[in-house]
Amino acid sequence: MKYISLLGASGSIGTQTLDVIKEHPEEFKLAAFSVGRNIDLARKIIIDFQPELVSVGEKSSADMLKAEFPGISFTYGQLGLTEVAVYHRSDIVVNAVLGRVGLEPTLQAIEDKKTIAIANKETLVTAGHLVMDAAKENNVQLLPVDSEHSAIFQALQGEKEKNIDRLILTASGGSFRDQSRADLENVTVAEALNHPNWSMGAKITIDSASMMNKGLEVIEAHWLFSLPYEKIDVLLHNESIIHSMVEFHDSSVIAQLGTPDMRVPIQYALTYPDRLPLPSANRLNLAQIGKLHFKEMDFERFRCLKFAYEAGKAGGSMPAVLNAANEAAVAAFLEGKISFLKIEDLIESALERHQTIKHPELSDIQAIDEETRKYINSLL
Amino acid sequence: MKYISLLGASGSIGTQTLDVIKEHPEEFKLAAFSVGRNIDLARKIIIDFQPELVSVGEKSSADMLKAEFPGISFTYGQLGLTEVAVYHRSDIVVNAVLGRVGLEPTLQAIEDKKTIAIANKETLVTAGHLVMDAAKENNVQLLPVDSEHSAIFQALQGEKEKNIDRLILTASGGSFRDQSRADLENVTVAEALNHPNWSMGAKITIDSASMMNKGLEVIEAHWLFSLPYEKIDVLLHNESIIHSMVEFHDSSVIAQLGTPDMRVPIQYALTYPDRLPLPSANRLNLAQIGKLHFKEMDFERFRCLKFAYEAGKAGGSMPAVLNAANEAAVAAFLEGKISFLKIEDLIESALERHQTIKHPELSDIQAIDEETRKYINSLL
Repeated sequence: MKYISLLGASGSIGTQTLDVIKEHPEEFKLAAFSVGRNIDLARKIIIDFQPELVSVGEKSSADMLKAEFPGISFTYGQLGLTEVAVYHRSDIVVNAVLGRVGLEPTLQAIEDKKTIAIANKETLVTAGHLVMDAAKENNVQLLPVDSEHSAIFQALQGEKEKNIDRLILTASGGSFRDQSRADLENVTVAEALNHPNWSMGAKITIDSASMMNKGLEVIEAHWLFSLPYEKIDVLLHNESIIHSMVEFHDSSVIAQLGTPDMRVPIQYALTYPDRLPLPSANRLNLAQIGKLHFKEMDFERFRCLKFAYEAGKAGGSMPAVLNAANEAAVAAFLEGKISFLKIEDLIESALERHQTIKHPELSDIQAIDEETRKYINSLL
Repeated sequence: MKYISLLGASGSIGTQTLDVIKEHPEEFKLAAFSVGRNIDLARKIIIDFQPELVSVGEKSSADMLKAEFPGISFTYGQLGLTEVAVYHRSDIVVNAVLGRVGLEPTLQAIEDKKTIAIANKETLVTAGHLVMDAAKENNVQLLPVDSEHSAIFQALQGEKEKNIDRLILTASGGSFRDQSRADLENVTVAEALNHPNWSMGAKITIDSASMMNKGLEVIEAHWLFSLPYEKIDVLLHNESIIHSMVEFHDSSVIAQLGTPDMRVPIQYALTYPDRLPLPSANRLNLAQIGKLHFKEMDFERFRCLKFAYEAGKAGGSMPAVLNAANEAAVAAFLEGKISFLKIEDLIESALERHQTIKHPELSDIQAIDEETRKYINSLL
């Protein structure tokens, strides 16, 4: 039995993690979880999974739930997240929170020698050097949950790092893949939220449309697989069937494929290095699909991806600026304050004015994050 | 340094094995090889690779070469093949001979605890039970050289057998993939030899056109990966880019891809479990290829594949009949004695009249092989 701490139970990855746990009651037990404001869902999860510790956003919610479920421990806020992450009985922490709040609990859990299943992009994007150093020092394994990184991780099983020539991250192209830059001038929030293959949260769906999502994934891949950016490529692949690939120096390419279903990489992270059945998943039927399409990435069409490579190569604090500027800009777009293409301009402006700090500490990263958000908001 | 015995140096796999050895003089040394009648090539290989033992088809050729190269040992005939296979200095035997002559040397090399890189289909198709039993008993690894089986073998690295749901062998469809059965009535030998993706020997190119090649591969896969025929599927895939796949019970599919280049699987067998660079191989460029196509297999259009599944499931001596009937029928087609579709009829007739022997010995298999060829020839 593996005991699981789930950070961010109410999001898309969180609820699918719960689905996976439910499919395998003999294998997995939800020991602790966190939600933010969705107390109704917290109540439902408590009843369904009978965890031992629950963290919510506010103290008042924690007190209310404590009255309803006296046998369960409750906590709240940022500290609550960390308590869930380091919960003594848990073997593995699924980090599925949104945004930078995932960083500190992850570092704490690594200190505590927990295995980390990482779905929170910001953790590696903004502080990859701190996280990877801590993981190495504590001999902790970071297991990817993103479909692309899970694909690469699966393709690398039984292989040697020294034989890798490059990683090929596939990109569906997002909601606007068939539009030109001119078409993008007047796109609406609703259009941007209409992803062709994956059903995900709003922020990540916008990031897919702007290709920033792939940019963040490139930076994550750099850290997860210890490879220079020159060895990480992105390939447009409409159908999201090949989830990513690894090319070795003998020219052989290993790929992981499947129908788009996030439960598969989530479950793989939980079962690794083994696999368990997932009978409810739709099987891949390539004959029915008929064709898979591939197209070269266009860095002028998708400027955010170019920014991400540049920020990644600059290193240090630059990816934290990229991430914070993007979060603030996307939030402004979702609130109707700016146009879609303005997201790119704002990010570019934030990157241009930042002086890279080579080895930022956690406190530097937090300060830069806040400062960048303020700067973006000042431009709105 | 790995010392290599190469059975069948003059064929397509043989010459490409030599290319791979030549690319890595620090890693591989050709210790012994065999050719049949191509003495000019033997001479060239001797000069290029300076092996210690050479086997040729006829005694007279061996004597002639001995006079020319007094420092090298020569042998000949069927016994010569076995001497090459068990050559004391060799670590690995590449079995790239055509037809059933590969079987006995392979069994001898297994007894001698040599690693076997197997490109000779007949060995596993006709005597898979004997070969796999011997390999298990002697704790010898059989490494696939066929691109499809190598793909599956690569996809299985780091994975557990119990988690496999099915193997998906891809099939290009061969020279006549765009023709209907009616179109096949009057096809010529030259048309049949015109394979769209791979440059191979005549026999295997005809087998690709009739889909018997894939049928033999299904039987090989059954033995190599210890899986029932119900878990082995064939998928039409025109481009021969995805060389084959494995589907696991969590619905995840791992595939190996690359441009069609037999040196890649040959080299993988020689370097396994490591990889070495192969800088002269063309890198896969999926953006340039643009599309990959997939289509369901049609067992009425490709009757030989159906026969192969049936013979495989019947087991025992039946696959030996399938193989012998096919060899005799293809030879007759190549000699212009029968039409292309007659190949299928002859094989069907041979299978129908055979009473399966459940556990045939080597001598049974040889007798059935000869008897089947006689029967086919009697129908011409």
